[in-house]
Formats: sequence, C-alpha cells, structure tokens
Amino acid sequence: MKKCIENVRSNRPLIHNITNYVTVNDVANVLLACGASPIMSDDPEEVKEITSICGGLNINIGTLNQHTIPSMFLAGQKANELGRKVLLDPVGAGASSLRTDTAVKLMKEIKFSAIRGNISEIKTLALGTGRTKGVDADVADAVTENTLDNAIAFVKAFAKTTGCIIAVTGAIDLVSDGDKCYVIRNGRAEMSKITGTGCQLSAMMTAFLVANPGNELEAAAAAVCAMGLAGEIGWSNMQPGDGNSTYRNRMIDAIYNMDGETLEKGAKYEVR
Amino acid sequence: MKKCIENVRSNRPLIHNITNYVTVNDVANVLLACGASPIMSDDPEEVKEITSICGGLNINIGTLNQHTIPSMFLAGQKANELGRKVLLDPVGAGASSLRTDTAVKLMKEIKFSAIRGNISEIKTLALGTGRTKGVDADVADAVTENTLDNAIAFVKAFAKTTGCIIAVTGAIDLVSDGDKCYVIRNGRAEMSKITGTGCQLSAMMTAFLVANPGNELEAAAAAVCAMGLAGEIGWSNMQPGDGNSTYRNRMIDAIYNMDGETLEKGAKYEVR
Amino acid sequence: MKKCIENVRSNRPLIHNITNYVTVNDVANVLLACGASPIMSDDPEEVKEITSICGGLNINIGTLNQHTIPSMFLAGQKANELGRKVLLDPVGAGASSLRTDTAVKLMKEIKFSAIRGNISEIKTLALGTGRTKGVDADVADAVTENTLDNAIAFVKAFAKTTGCIIAVTGAIDLVSDGDKCYVIRNGRAEMSKITGTGCQLSAMMTAFLVANPGNELEAAAAAVCAMGLAGEIGWSNMQPGDGNSTYRNRMIDAIYNMDGETLEKGAKYEVR
Repeated sequence: MKKCIENVRSNRPLIHNITNYVTVNDVANVLLACGASPIMSDDPEEVKEITSICGGLNINIGTLNQHTIPSMFLAGQKANELGRKVLLDPVGAGASSLRTDTAVKLMKEIKFSAIRGNISEIKTLALGTGRTKGVDADVADAVTENTLDNAIAFVKAFAKTTGCIIAVTGAIDLVSDGDKCYVIRNGRAEMSKITGTGCQLSAMMTAFLVANPGNELEAAAAAVCAMGLAGEIGWSNMQPGDGNSTYRNRMIDAIYNMDGETLEKGAKYEVR
Repeated sequence: MKKCIENVRSNRPLIHNITNYVTVNDVANVLLACGASPIMSDDPEEVKEITSICGGLNINIGTLNQHTIPSMFLAGQKANELGRKVLLDPVGAGASSLRTDTAVKLMKEIKFSAIRGNISEIKTLALGTGRTKGVDADVADAVTENTLDNAIAFVKAFAKTTGCIIAVTGAIDLVSDGDKCYVIRNGRAEMSKITGTGCQLSAMMTAFLVANPGNELEAAAAAVCAMGLAGEIGWSNMQPGDGNSTYRNRMIDAIYNMDGETLEKGAKYEVR
Repeated sequence: MKKCIENVRSNRPLIHNITNYVTVNDVANVLLACGASPIMSDDPEEVKEITSICGGLNINIGTLNQHTIPSMFLAGQKANELGRKVLLDPVGAGASSLRTDTAVKLMKEIKFSAIRGNISEIKTLALGTGRTKGVDADVADAVTENTLDNAIAFVKAFAKTTGCIIAVTGAIDLVSDGDKCYVIRNGRAEMSKITGTGCQLSAMMTAFLVANPGNELEAAAAAVCAMGLAGEIGWSNMQPGDGNSTYRNRMIDAIYNMDGETLEKGAKYEVR
C-alpha cells in the first residue's frame, strides 16, 4: 500500500478526465491532493490529443450527453492504442437506458484497466440492463457481512469475464482482478452524504494505476483504502457545527496530507 | 415548519436537477444536507426517464443552452404527466431575451408547483419582458419594509394568475399561493456574497414540496426559513479571517445539522 | 495598488465569464469576494446581450468545445464594439491543436485588454504553436531569478506585438504593457496544488481592469499581487491537518477580507 501512494507522489501522473460537471472541481483537487495532475477535456476534436499527453484516462458518465459520449469512445480508443490505463465510472448505470447502454457499449469497444462503481451500477453492467435508484446503490443490493461471500464471488466472476479490475465500493469495498479479491473496511457511512466521493475515488484510482505498472490490483485497492481512510481522518477532525460541506474539504485535505506510512497503517483489508 | 423538514429527512426524496454548472456542486451537497438525494441530468435522450424515477424536478436556467433547453421542456412535461412536483428557478430572467423567453415559454407549457427567484426575475416573468442587472436583483426593485405591502399584493396576484406558489427571495422573503403570503425575515445580507444560495434554495424547496404533499405552501416557506436560518447559524460560526468561501461551507453544514426543532424555533415569519 | 482594489469594491463591476466548468464556482466566488459580480453565459444566442450589460468579459478556454468556441468570438467582438475590457486566459494552449488554434484565432479577431497564462501557455501563443504538459507550465520554461532578464524581455516584446497587457504567472509573476514590467514576488508554491488559482486570477484581473480605466497596467498587477497575497494570508491561517481544499477556501476568504491598505502593504513588486 505504502509504495502505491508514494509512486503517485513521485511520478505525478497527468490524468485526462472526461467527467461530470457536478463533482469535477473536487475531482481536480483530489488528484492534486494525491500528487497527480488533472486535465479535463471532453470535445471530440481534442480528446485524442489530450489523452496522448496523459498517463491515464478516467471516463465518468455522470452527466453524459450527445456531445461528450463520442469523446468517451474516441479518447478510450486512443488510450487503448497507446497502451494507457483507462478507467470507467458508470455513474447512474441503470437509472436510464442512455447510461446503461453507453456504459455497456463502452465496455464492448474499449479495454478498461478498471471499472469502479457502486454495487447497483456494477450489477447493471454485469446484466447489461438494470434499474437503479438514481446514482445511489439500492439497499437491497448492499454488500454486508451477510452477503459478503456471494458478493465476492460475483465481483471475481465479473472481473474474470471482463478481464479488468472491478471495484465495488460501499459499506464494504471489494476490489478484484478475477483471481484475488481485496475486502476493504475503511470509510464511514457519512461519506455518502457528500456528493462525488465515488467520482473522486475513480480519478484517484486512475492515478494509482498509472503510477504502479505491474502492480495494478494492489494499486486499485490502495486507492480505495486511501479514500476510506481519508473519510476516517477527515471525520476525526470534525468540530461541532461541521457538516457535509466541511467534511468534503477535510477528506481532500486528508488525502493531501497522507503519506505512505499513514496509508500502510490505516488500511483495513483482507485478501480473499 | 418542524414537520416539513422532518418529512424530507424521513422520505429522502430523489430530486432531478437540470441546473447550471456554476453552483451544481453546492446544489447537490445541500440536497444531501437536508436529507434528499440529487441526480443531475440534462440530455434530451434521458431526462424523461430520469424524471420518472424522481420525486421532483428542479429546472434552473442559470447556464441554459441550445442543448439543455429542450431537456427542460421534455422533463417538465413528463413530470406533469406523472403528477410530480416541478420548480422553476428563472436565473437571470431579464438579462437576455433567451432567458426571458425560455422562462416565459416554460411557464406556458409546463404546470409548475413553484417558481423561486429574486424580485427582478419574478417581475420580468410577470411582465413577460424585462431588463435586469445580471443575476442580481435591481436595488430599485428591492422588497423593503416601505414597499412591503405592494410587494405582497404583487406576489399574491402573480401566484393567483399562474396557479403556483411564488417565492421571491431577498432581504425580506415572500412566499405565496395567491391566498396567503408568508413574509420571512430570516437570513443575512452577507448571503448575497456567496454564489448560488438561490440555486441551493430552489433545489431544497423542490425536496420540501415533494416530501410534504398537501402542505405545499408551508413546505415552500419552511425551505426559505431553513436557508435563511442556515445563513444566520453559519454566520454565527464564522471565525476571524473567514470569508465568503468558508461561509458557503458553514451554511451547508448548518442545513446538515438542522433538525425540526431548530427550524421551528429559528424561523421568523408572519402570514399575511 | 490600494486604489485599484478599492475601485473594484466601490464600482462593483459585472463580469461576463465564458469559462470552464472545472473551476467556475471558485471564479464566481472570488469575483464576489473582491467586490465584483459574476455572470456566466456561453450560449451563442445570448452571449452578445450578456456582454452588453457587463463591464468586462473574461474568456477562459479551459473546457472549450464546439458550442462555446463560437460564443467566445461573438462575445469578444461585441465587447470590442462597445469598448469593454476583454481578457483571455488560454488554459492549456499547447496541450491540443484545438486550444492553440482557438487561442491564436481569438487573438487575431479580438482586441484583448489583457492575456493571462502560465509561461508555457504564453510562449505557445507567441510562437503560434507549442507543446505543453497539460495545463501546468513546463519546468523548463519556468521564470526564475536566473532566467528573469530574458523572461522580462520576452513578456515586454510580446505585449508590444499584441498591444495588450501580458501577465505571466508562476513562481515569479510578470505583468507588462510592452513598456514597463511589474515583477511580482507574492504567492506560495502550494497554490499550484489548488485547481483554478489561475482561472480565479483571470476573472479578478478582468474586474480590476474594468474598475480602473486609464490605469490598466497597475490594475492588472494589483490583481496579481492580491491573488499572491491571498495565497500568503490563506497559508498563514492553515491549521494542522488542513490541505489544498481548505487552502482554496482560505484564499478566497483572504480576498474577501482584503482592504486597500492590506494590499498596499503586502504587495511585493518592482517595476522594470
């Protein structure tokens, strides 16, 4: 874990983000906080060039539209050609056909290094269809201690089918390459009261993947642990009267101040 | 008032926002802060589906464009078909023909549950034309103790004509259904130094309307009181050196921590 | 310097921003913090009208696309017709042909009052072509004490060629009208860990230019000093555990609280 975040800080990877306009500022700041560098660009005329100068590409469909969808395909294909890391965050897959279909089509035409979403989004991708409650996971789908064994089996199988790392985040996070599965218990329930912690994690995971070639599974898991740990540290710094807006700042601040040792000691995971 | 915010926290309504990219992150966080859940989506291909899974729709024309305007009509019509609450925030109506015309056309084709804006924007809608100073209210239009009686009469009349709740916010806030008018004196002048307090309020008002069927007028007024009270509580937590950026966080934090009793006790209003 | 910021606070100029969606909220809040008023609008159908009611126009190409590029030309031409101040922030010029070409074409067709960017972006504009590392300046290009004389000569020459104020910001900031050059040593290295300090500065500089007719060079330099000084004041208020997200808030807060005397005393510059 330690080495994974240290590599981001020393390599300072440039990450191309085609992402939603809701959480884009936090995405940029969390990338800077972890030592990476962000660039946002979503016009079809320039995305191939932008991807070419970047170490990795983070595709987030949170506010996808007719003009940015073609950019996702163009940038993804270029990243594949150049052997760059590409991550998919299927925000709201299952909430509309446009989201589900775009995510499924992206998975067909682009080879992703990793896909990160909540359990409902990932299940929708696995089934190729679905119905989710907006951008939040359905309670019925939640990964709990009771459903853990089944969830691990599902994530492993889906990682095997897709040939990429699958990260399902929630109360318990699962990160698998089809062979091993990290079961991560960092984080706090209050993180769901901040918009965009998932978007931030996807961007950061892209940076971790880029900076740790050959060690992708641990890198992806380290990003998840770092985000959860930041949620714990940020919460421990909360004062009376603080709420979700301050919590958002304290989480990004915690990433900014996190060194390898803090991550190593704070990461709570087992490998199954 | 008490019950109105408690109903949002217990019902957790999902709100579809077609909104501007300036304040969208704060809009999402304030919805989470009050107990609702946000989803942002503005592509014509998916807005009808998104609205269908939501309890209410918040249309904000703050950065309207050729691609999102059709989405506003599609989503609004779908919401009307399904009997969902729809709110209009006519940001900058009067600042350009595109804004004025779009807002007026939206009012013709969609049945709104509520319209919330500053006095200059609402006057522009009432006249069907106007000229405002950007996105801020003209000083000449301001609702003050001196102009209060006329302002109440105007808001009541416009609410009657449109058949929807009209909320005019400023130094004194007015919320009327055409019959009664809440006159609200919460808030602080410094709130105008934060971008998007109006946008945040509109989103929150949508959530309050959805969670309080049959009690819409009080719900809309409760949202206005909650926002103003958050401005007061947030300000009371300001430290030396703090400014508008921190104030923004403290206001959203105050919503996050606001329970029914705090709102009940802090709301300053009379019904006329 | 003192008078420059005081004029912004007393004149309260309305600034039209065609800007990127990454940092737009901070841009709006920093304009409010310094006493100006923001409006964001990027649809070709309304930008001419919006520019007409504003004191100045801030064009930022940070997330340019096929729909906003025409708006930049339309608004810029209207601002020129009306004799309004127009500023260009060529974010990422050199990172893609679209960015470089758009910036160069804007410079040909629009008479700018000022152009503000990092050294790599400005060099790209001077050469009409270039290759930059995303949205950050190349280390090789950096303005240091060693390269200062050459950098000043370059900035002066480019200001003379273009007939507008050129502001190059980085570790040392240079602001020239072709004749004189302000060499500014405010700011902190940690400011580069916050997304959008450059975008914020460009917006603020536009407001300073509008509020100080006939004294444009000092006004532009004052905006640069104010931003750098806010970085110093903001940093001095940092607490253990604070990071780049809180630093962002504290910088905008520092602008909010900055009076003419604080700026006068804190500004570190020489004129060469």
